[in-house]
Amino acid sequence: MNTHVLLTPGPLTTSPQTKQAMLTDWGSWDTAFNQLTASVCSDIVQIVNGASTHVCVPLQGSGTFAVEATLGTLVPPTGKVLVPNNGAYCQRIARILRYLGRGVVLLDHRDVEPADPARIDAALSADSSITHVAQVHCETGTGILNPLQDIARVVRRHGRRLIVDAMSSLGAVPIDLSTTPIDAVIAASGKCLEGAPGMGFIVVRRDLIESSPGHSHSLALDLHDQWIYMQKSGQWRFTPPTHVVAALRVALDQFLAEGGTVARGARYRANCHTLTQGMRALGFQLLLPEATQSHIIVTFHAPQHPAYNFDALYRGVREKGFILYPGKLTQIDTFRVGCIGAIDAGVIKQAVTAIKQTMQELGIQP
Amino acid sequence: MNTHVLLTPGPLTTSPQTKQAMLTDWGSWDTAFNQLTASVCSDIVQIVNGASTHVCVPLQGSGTFAVEATLGTLVPPTGKVLVPNNGAYCQRIARILRYLGRGVVLLDHRDVEPADPARIDAALSADSSITHVAQVHCETGTGILNPLQDIARVVRRHGRRLIVDAMSSLGAVPIDLSTTPIDAVIAASGKCLEGAPGMGFIVVRRDLIESSPGHSHSLALDLHDQWIYMQKSGQWRFTPPTHVVAALRVALDQFLAEGGTVARGARYRANCHTLTQGMRALGFQLLLPEATQSHIIVTFHAPQHPAYNFDALYRGVREKGFILYPGKLTQIDTFRVGCIGAIDAGVIKQAVTAIKQTMQELGIQP
Repeated sequence: MNTHVLLTPGPLTTSPQTKQAMLTDWGSWDTAFNQLTASVCSDIVQIVNGASTHVCVPLQGSGTFAVEATLGTLVPPTGKVLVPNNGAYCQRIARILRYLGRGVVLLDHRDVEPADPARIDAALSADSSITHVAQVHCETGTGILNPLQDIARVVRRHGRRLIVDAMSSLGAVPIDLSTTPIDAVIAASGKCLEGAPGMGFIVVRRDLIESSPGHSHSLALDLHDQWIYMQKSGQWRFTPPTHVVAALRVALDQFLAEGGTVARGARYRANCHTLTQGMRALGFQLLLPEATQSHIIVTFHAPQHPAYNFDALYRGVREKGFILYPGKLTQIDTFRVGCIGAIDAGVIKQAVTAIKQTMQELGIQP
Repeated sequence: MNTHVLLTPGPLTTSPQTKQAMLTDWGSWDTAFNQLTASVCSDIVQIVNGASTHVCVPLQGSGTFAVEATLGTLVPPTGKVLVPNNGAYCQRIARILRYLGRGVVLLDHRDVEPADPARIDAALSADSSITHVAQVHCETGTGILNPLQDIARVVRRHGRRLIVDAMSSLGAVPIDLSTTPIDAVIAASGKCLEGAPGMGFIVVRRDLIESSPGHSHSLALDLHDQWIYMQKSGQWRFTPPTHVVAALRVALDQFLAEGGTVARGARYRANCHTLTQGMRALGFQLLLPEATQSHIIVTFHAPQHPAYNFDALYRGVREKGFILYPGKLTQIDTFRVGCIGAIDAGVIKQAVTAIKQTMQELGIQP
């Protein structure tokens, strides 16, 4: 049995109860399973305060499957999407749009620069043919948090649609659909809700998903078809990942018992604070300034020392029970540490100690 | 805890060991997990005896995701696919091809009629623009087994490519790629390998997947991209369903310990024999003649009795611990019972008793 603590932003460490929920087989046509799915979807809509306007549509596969499904279903073939770009997941959205043959306008930012509402405003003013904005909330590539509320207001003022990739923020950073105009929010089971990976979901305006037939390039990824079928039958169109759905149900129970997004965000913030304090004391430098650093995942500069390489650090820390995450920047040598999952600041403290010991073993002084 | 026996063709009843494999969290970038994926893929290629020619590419999502990914990746945009059609999963392939804008020629059969190699031969002779044949091996809609070897020989003789949906047969019906010319075979984790649902895979000729860049309509479903990335990195491109992969590894261990496809097929055949004997004794009639009935799933005619309805039967049998499966035919009233999963003939005997008792409770005499 592998018992490493995952300091990775999904898959992440899940609680024993969440994993134990996978010890039951469920019939995918059975009423009990349909109720499980319905309750999961209902809770997710509540978490982002969208019950009066939005519905939740689950989808098999990873978060990227849900992102592609959302873009393919909601953006008509004639659509054109503005993608404020400050990282790898923004670029993935652009890559998907090119596969789909949808128009894409990249609004490039530096990796360390939050998406700028003023520049988005100007881009929408300059090009009236842009129909949608696809915004990553927390860019997992660096850990930067983009100013979603301000961006949403700008997009609404221009009368364009807003699709938000909230993969690594939903459940840890408040999103309130009753006050923030967002058409669709996308996330996945194995992120801040602390379920097992294997399904994504979108929370989408009911009128919008219902008026989106015939857009999708894909049967498997057609969210309109998934929604219509699910409304009619209570079932998923194609075999659902039953154990993953059951785990998400139990993970949501724990999420609600903990106190929802506010409490979970506070625990992650404490994790992040313990991590950054401890790492700074070891001489590590953060990529991002505090103001834009999320409490989801932290990018550290690689030490400037000839004895350092990430593989050696990874292996040493792994031997001590913790899994780090590589950097995702092409220009700068970095690595990442996740603050999310069923772990607390005490675990993070141990992880920092493991990093310290490994650095000493490698002969690298802070 | 739900402890029903699933008499459904995936999700199905998995063993306790398989489920317990999901009690561990895995880092998706970690070498140990990469090795897990590689060993799963290697074993699957061995099961269909394709190691010298074929590779296995796993994919997140249900089996249908893998079917669509295979068609989108292997059939070029100018391709035209013959689909011998005798059931719902054949029709789903045609539906996918229409989404993808690939040419499709349906070769209609009756539901109870196996795909006819002579008619396939004639169809390929008549239309030289057909590039591929997409054949369902065991059509789960009825349980009919199509004559794969004969069809493969015909397709090869015509120099066309053959894609096989072996979703509900792989692991229970022998497929030997060293003697049967097949370009790609598709199946999923939660079927006869008795894993948890949540991922599919294709076993595809290495030269074919390597010569298929740029075909896919979808980033998430681009198997060429998945294969290239996995070869380079050992990792999945996007977050894998780690717990499902771990469960499949343990399920494969049990599959091999049981004696592979021959032994598993024999157990399912015994299940099927016990089921059909018991059900015939209760007065139920099979849809299919014995010669074409697979040992995967059996379709029964609904009893011609005013007190019968499937929901009542389902509920009564469910109370006794067993989950039946509805029919999938539009013209005839039927229901289905799966023979697959981590169950033996003793369990099937109990299921037949539960059906008998329920029929008595409903006042339906055999």
